[in-house]
Amino acid sequence: MEDCVFCGLVSGSLPCMKVYEDEFTLAFMDTAGDVDGHILVVPKVHAESILDCDEATLSRLMSTVRKVSLHLVENCGYEGVNLLNASGESAGQSVPHFHIHLIPRRSNDAIDAWPRFRGAMRDTRDLFREISMEGE
Amino acid sequence: MEDCVFCGLVSGSLPCMKVYEDEFTLAFMDTAGDVDGHILVVPKVHAESILDCDEATLSRLMSTVRKVSLHLVENCGYEGVNLLNASGESAGQSVPHFHIHLIPRRSNDAIDAWPRFRGAMRDTRDLFREISMEGE
Repeated sequence: MEDCVFCGLVSGSLPCMKVYEDEFTLAFMDTAGDVDGHILVVPKVHAESILDCDEATLSRLMSTVRKVSLHLVENCGYEGVNLLNASGESAGQSVPHFHIHLIPRRSNDAIDAWPRFRGAMRDTRDLFREISMEGE
Repeated sequence: MEDCVFCGLVSGSLPCMKVYEDEFTLAFMDTAGDVDGHILVVPKVHAESILDCDEATLSRLMSTVRKVSLHLVENCGYEGVNLLNASGESAGQSVPHFHIHLIPRRSNDAIDAWPRFRGAMRDTRDLFREISMEGE
C-alpha cells in the first residue's frame, strides 16, 4: 500500500533489521528503543489490523510469531515472550499495518510488560450480558 | 490437565461467563476487574503458552480472537481491541494455560493498554546481531 511504512519495509524501499522473513511475513527490530529486543511481526500483504486481516494471513502471521519466539528461547537464552497488539486507532495503534509486538523475556530482566489498568468502571456481569455471543 | 484452572473452565467443572465457545476454543470474562470488558481466549486443549502450542491450535485460537474482536466492533459499539499475551513465567504469565487477553476499546475510553517500558538498556543493532534468524 502506497505511503504505508511497513509496506515499504516489506518491499525493501525502506531499510530494516530483518530478524526473520518468509513468503508471507516479516519480523524486524523496532527501533524506538523503548525496551530491549523489541521485534515487530507483520504480514506482507497489507491489512490494517486483526479486524480486516483474512484468516489465512492471520494464521501465517502467528506461525511466524511462534517461530521467532521459539528461536529466542531455544537459541538466544531467553525464557519467554510478551505479545502485544493494538488493533484500531482507539486502541492506540500508530502504524495502520497489522503488527504484533514481540518482547523477548528473561527472569529478572526488570521489564514490566503489563499495562497499568486503573480498575474496571463497570460491573463485569453487566458488560458480559452486552458482549456475550452465546445464545445468539 | 488436572489442577489447571482454565482446563476446569473448559470442562465445565468450574463456572465462567462464556463469551464464545466452539469445538476448539473458549472465550470468557476475566473477573479480576482490572479493566472494563477484559476477555480471555483459550484453546480447549492444554498448552502452556505459544511456545508449546501446536500450529493448528494456535490458528484456531487466533481465529476465535478475531471472531470475538469483530463481534465487539460490529455488534457492540466498540472500535478496536488490544491483545496481550505473556508466554512463560519470566514474561509474567500467571496461569500456565495459553491465553490471549482481549480488551475492547472505544475512542476516549481513558484506558492505557500500553506498558510503561523504561527504555532500552542495550543498543538495538547489537541485540539484532544476537537474535536475527536471517543468514542462519
